Amino acid sequence: MDSVKVGLLGFGTIGGGVAEILLGKSEQIARATGKKIELVKICDKDLTSDRGVSIPDGILTDNLAEIMDDPEISIVIELIGGIEPARSFVLRALESGKDVVTANKALLANCGPELFAKARELGRTIGFEASVCGGVPVLASIQTSLQANEIESIKAIVNGTCNFILSEMESKGSAYADVLKEAQRLGFAEANPTLDVDGSDSTQKLCILAQLAFGAVTDWKAISRVGVDVVDSIDVKFARELGRKIRLLAVAERSNEGLVLQVCPTLIPEDSALAKVTNAYNGIEIVGDFVGSVFYQGWGAGRRPTASAVCSDVIDSALGRTKITFDSLRLWSDQREGVPVMDSKKIRGRAYLRLGVEDKPGVMAKVAETLAKRDVSIESMLQPPKARPDDPIASLIILTHETSSEALDDAVAELNASSFIRGKTIRLAVRD
Amino acid sequence: MDSVKVGLLGFGTIGGGVAEILLGKSEQIARATGKKIELVKICDKDLTSDRGVSIPDGILTDNLAEIMDDPEISIVIELIGGIEPARSFVLRALESGKDVVTANKALLANCGPELFAKARELGRTIGFEASVCGGVPVLASIQTSLQANEIESIKAIVNGTCNFILSEMESKGSAYADVLKEAQRLGFAEANPTLDVDGSDSTQKLCILAQLAFGAVTDWKAISRVGVDVVDSIDVKFARELGRKIRLLAVAERSNEGLVLQVCPTLIPEDSALAKVTNAYNGIEIVGDFVGSVFYQGWGAGRRPTASAVCSDVIDSALGRTKITFDSLRLWSDQREGVPVMDSKKIRGRAYLRLGVEDKPGVMAKVAETLAKRDVSIESMLQPPKARPDDPIASLIILTHETSSEALDDAVAELNASSFIRGKTIRLAVRD
Repeated sequence: MDSVKVGLLGFGTIGGGVAEILLGKSEQIARATGKKIELVKICDKDLTSDRGVSIPDGILTDNLAEIMDDPEISIVIELIGGIEPARSFVLRALESGKDVVTANKALLANCGPELFAKARELGRTIGFEASVCGGVPVLASIQTSLQANEIESIKAIVNGTCNFILSEMESKGSAYADVLKEAQRLGFAEANPTLDVDGSDSTQKLCILAQLAFGAVTDWKAISRVGVDVVDSIDVKFARELGRKIRLLAVAERSNEGLVLQVCPTLIPEDSALAKVTNAYNGIEIVGDFVGSVFYQGWGAGRRPTASAVCSDVIDSALGRTKITFDSLRLWSDQREGVPVMDSKKIRGRAYLRLGVEDKPGVMAKVAETLAKRDVSIESMLQPPKARPDDPIASLIILTHETSSEALDDAVAELNASSFIRGKTIRLAVRD
Repeated sequence: MDSVKVGLLGFGTIGGGVAEILLGKSEQIARATGKKIELVKICDKDLTSDRGVSIPDGILTDNLAEIMDDPEISIVIELIGGIEPARSFVLRALESGKDVVTANKALLANCGPELFAKARELGRTIGFEASVCGGVPVLASIQTSLQANEIESIKAIVNGTCNFILSEMESKGSAYADVLKEAQRLGFAEANPTLDVDGSDSTQKLCILAQLAFGAVTDWKAISRVGVDVVDSIDVKFARELGRKIRLLAVAERSNEGLVLQVCPTLIPEDSALAKVTNAYNGIEIVGDFVGSVFYQGWGAGRRPTASAVCSDVIDSALGRTKITFDSLRLWSDQREGVPVMDSKKIRGRAYLRLGVEDKPGVMAKVAETLAKRDVSIESMLQPPKARPDDPIASLIILTHETSSEALDDAVAELNASSFIRGKTIRLAVRD
């Protein structure tokens, strides 16, 4: 039986899961695939921590060269995360004639074109199923199973931390800060949760989805982005009264003016499949011109689901499937035709606004006037009762008709500068 | 650019969709895959009907040899359906050196071992994504993306007709017969719906899933099967009162005594993902030891979704991915280790029973006694008010604790033979 030797960079949580599969299931994988896949080296600076998996002597090393310079190792798994040194290590692995498997969305969103060009130049491949939606095999579907379709839209919940926070706020009526603390205690949120809750993580994943499904090349930092950190329990409550739930949606959607890319907490109908994604689950709805709507749900992070995706990439790479897909799709290359990305200012849609206003007569009229001046048309406006009657500040909730992002930006800027506005206006998206 | 020539057998509804993709999107597919895929011949007895797609002259023929004997055609798509002549045509295509793509679940459930052995012997492949769950790429996931997992269970709604019937009964409170008529009018059910509503279609699909996920080889006719044709609106109503919905589930699940295979209308919790699958959608939940629960939903039938799956197989076959997967998995072969299938009589589970009983004192006690004799333990028993007070027959609804299928069979047989029972006892499954 053919044998394929694998080296692993980064022995953290997910690395532990990958080692568990590759070391513990080697016979099962060999029987199922006809290939022996051997994890022969794991490189990490930390040689002593317990990762919950027993590894034979001689496998763990802190010397990168034992992987990079071993000509017998043909696949390198990168689980370091972040950009450097992951980027340099991936380049070095490719240059050393190795195929790469990575779970690193930040790396691909920032350096996709460079890394894929290098891999193509050297006749190597990069597998990255685990970079979006963890164990849910959604990248494979876009790259292969749905390839007869023109993808029309992707709407995705790709960050489990944020979904946990929103669905806890929903089910318990708790405040954002309390739920975040609870999420940290349960291990669903990191000690520093910024990249999750400000939407950066979701935006990087959207950037990868946009390349796969639409050939779009874009700087993730230019994508319109709002995180869950602006959502208040009052928003969750009003969403419910409107028959909606709030989900942090990453959206890529064709329009007549190009590809809409947007990450924003979004009010969606409560009976939609995405609204039913609760807890730390990920969910993704892909609409193709022939297949119609296909919906996926599963664990988007965590040791075992992510390891499942990483190891399926390792097997695909060992069997040669990755090579075929990689060569045919020419991802992040000039040869791949892409849908032009729409200027985020031009994106049109409905919006939910929450303003803190002075509780005085005439304020609602002034707000309405400011919006009307920018052609932002109001579908409904509501001033809910105050929690404390003596509070000098009242909340004002507004649903707009479809409007351009630019018009709304201007109106909100003017509102925020007005004397009758207290605090920053919160803006969420509304989608059906 | 490499070119691959394709012949299509069967120009019906799905054949029309396939022609629409392969003829209408040939440039898009060529750009996306680097291969030119040409549909050069379509064979059907009917040369005149309009299939809603315009095809160039010289493509449609009623002469099978124009496909089988053309050495330039390397892929044959079989969309005839049923066993013969589909089986003979597939064998002939393989013997003529062609790879096969089929959407035919009946053919695979009945002749899988023969066809796959022949394909292996001749170094050819069979692609069959469209045979289960139509456009939803669930077979590809099991064969590739989830391959690092040991699959623990599959619970699937694989028949859109039955799901449409159940969810209409649920939302409208209508009777089975009325909903079936409506489904036929809307084109969701065939003029002769027997194979759908008696569970045969779902069982054949389960047979394919059981081979893919568990290596199980089984005669689909030996699988425990109940169809939606036994479900009454009273069952839907009581399920709802229990916080449950009824779905026709095809289940494959590891147990200590082997693989449980079962097709049965099943009372499942109303907040489960499968319960939320409405209309003619398909849904499938796969649980793997590492990935956890992954859930898919989409259109399981129909011209366009099924054509999407067929064409993805054609592209996989043209690019060589099918060959790798086919060779490594050795489906339906002796070399593939399988989980032994459990005798359906030994399957244990909870059950929902509906009996028609004489409305006389003492009948409930007699029913309880009959069940107790077979060690069938009752979780709850309920005699709902009769629709017409003068009806001499009352319904009795029973939920049992976990019991073996055999004990329940015996108890139900004895009940059905009892003088106080009117009509046949209906038995559904209950799962959490």
